[in-house]
Amino acid sequence: MPAKSPVIVDLKFIPEEVEAALGGAFPDREVINRADPAQKDRDLSGIDYAVVWKSAPDLFSRAPDLKVVFSGGAGVDHVLTLPGLPNVPLVRFVDRTLTTRMSEWVVMQCLLHLRQHRAYEALAQKREWRDLIQPEAADVTVGIMGMGVLGQDAARKLATMGFKVVGWSRTKRAMEGMDTYGAADLDAFLARTDFLVGLLPLTAETKGIFNADLFAKLSRKGPLGAPVFINAGRGGSQVEADILECLDSGVLAAASLDVFEEEPLSPDSRFWTMPNVYVTPHVAASSDVRALFAHVEEQIARFESGLPLEHVVDRLAGY
Amino acid sequence: MPAKSPVIVDLKFIPEEVEAALGGAFPDREVINRADPAQKDRDLSGIDYAVVWKSAPDLFSRAPDLKVVFSGGAGVDHVLTLPGLPNVPLVRFVDRTLTTRMSEWVVMQCLLHLRQHRAYEALAQKREWRDLIQPEAADVTVGIMGMGVLGQDAARKLATMGFKVVGWSRTKRAMEGMDTYGAADLDAFLARTDFLVGLLPLTAETKGIFNADLFAKLSRKGPLGAPVFINAGRGGSQVEADILECLDSGVLAAASLDVFEEEPLSPDSRFWTMPNVYVTPHVAASSDVRALFAHVEEQIARFESGLPLEHVVDRLAGY
Repeated sequence: MPAKSPVIVDLKFIPEEVEAALGGAFPDREVINRADPAQKDRDLSGIDYAVVWKSAPDLFSRAPDLKVVFSGGAGVDHVLTLPGLPNVPLVRFVDRTLTTRMSEWVVMQCLLHLRQHRAYEALAQKREWRDLIQPEAADVTVGIMGMGVLGQDAARKLATMGFKVVGWSRTKRAMEGMDTYGAADLDAFLARTDFLVGLLPLTAETKGIFNADLFAKLSRKGPLGAPVFINAGRGGSQVEADILECLDSGVLAAASLDVFEEEPLSPDSRFWTMPNVYVTPHVAASSDVRALFAHVEEQIARFESGLPLEHVVDRLAGY
Repeated sequence: MPAKSPVIVDLKFIPEEVEAALGGAFPDREVINRADPAQKDRDLSGIDYAVVWKSAPDLFSRAPDLKVVFSGGAGVDHVLTLPGLPNVPLVRFVDRTLTTRMSEWVVMQCLLHLRQHRAYEALAQKREWRDLIQPEAADVTVGIMGMGVLGQDAARKLATMGFKVVGWSRTKRAMEGMDTYGAADLDAFLARTDFLVGLLPLTAETKGIFNADLFAKLSRKGPLGAPVFINAGRGGSQVEADILECLDSGVLAAASLDVFEEEPLSPDSRFWTMPNVYVTPHVAASSDVRALFAHVEEQIARFESGLPLEHVVDRLAGY
């Protein structure tokens, strides 16, 4: 039996978390962690597997023999745009913790806007005891664009919290107890939506979809008087100049942004300190690194025993 | 048929909300809104009903003939301590919106602490793009003290969000899929609890129960390194000097407080601006005033047709 192929790890995560997670991972094969300076000039030819998240652009030219590429997250746009991506299976990371973490962030952002958190924080800073007229979750319709695993989980949890929820996806998906819309019904979906949640993959079709035209079609009948935009999908789906303009003009009441056209977000961006914008640094659903390696181990085991890989990306659709 | 008794309304709520809700309320009887200056010297004798929330202390001496007293909220301590409370049924306000609003607040506070919201807000103010090591909800055990209608609803929703949840009440209540504890097991409950949520009524037994002794018994094994205290029950249940001391010494990592020993909270309080404390002005579960009047109308209709009143307070238990 030939020796098992090493696995290349090239993850722009918190280095200490990757190191710690590698402790017990891949017991039967060598791990080449590209964050380790000692591995910098290592010959990567003849290696079958790579686990990547925003890897160095020379990865595929340096590792020409890969048989499977694993994305370190749910999204794969960061891989699809790398030069020299070989024509081999590309596997997404689908994981319970990635899903539940995303829903934590989405539900928290919806509650922050509903419960007028920033207004109460401002009152507290002034040491002022005053209650504001308070809508309840049932007064707000949250519209989710992107009804895959993440969107469905967030929808279910928002509904449990009392929000009205509607869903939109390119291919309409039925969900029990919830109105859902497909590509042709986008305007009808937007007209009902008070809080718009973006959980879309970045594809040619979704690039720049969150723009002034779309925001203008959102409901203005919600209890906050204007809609709220919440994006945890991909920054490339949003037109940030339009978001700023719509926040300034009142077309949007507020926003929560975890993703940006360019990451890291520039220190010069106005978003950082706007009173009606919550900014987080692409952490809505950080991958649990141990869970990622367990998933890669499982898929490699399937691959090496001749079983089909799971969660393989449809490159044409882009997700 | 004699004329129907008027109803006295004495609610320290947002006056405009009370006025608006009175619009369609009690169509078959007179309403005496004590917030209306024109009603200031009105003779209140011979009147059967009063709806009260932190009413003027002379209410019961001025209205000596009340047959039923309705609390404007879930709690009744504000009524039980009023001088001259007549020996007539005292009815609590139990309502869907009061429950769901409370759960919105509780879930949001748990998520704010879990997701290190204040830390990310501080990074945003510095325009710094940096991710923090992020535990997930399943890493945290939320312990709820007070497992009545509010506690049970919050428990169910926290569990849906992925938190581990345990419950404590004076009289142990079984809840499916959840460990619950009774009076004798308080220490065992505390030893498991990372985030402590207070939803207790204020009674002789709960006065000052949230003190340094209790906080010292909470779990220190949670992912934040120290426990978090979240109180939306009654301020009289907490010893604020102890909370401050425990926050200063690290016995508590953080707190969310909606209720205080003295309300409004003094402008001098340190709580207002502490970096690890969220303060809201007793608004976690503001009563929906329309729903309150609908509930009072329903109970008056029952009372006048000889049916038993619902949600009558056990004065000995205090809730």
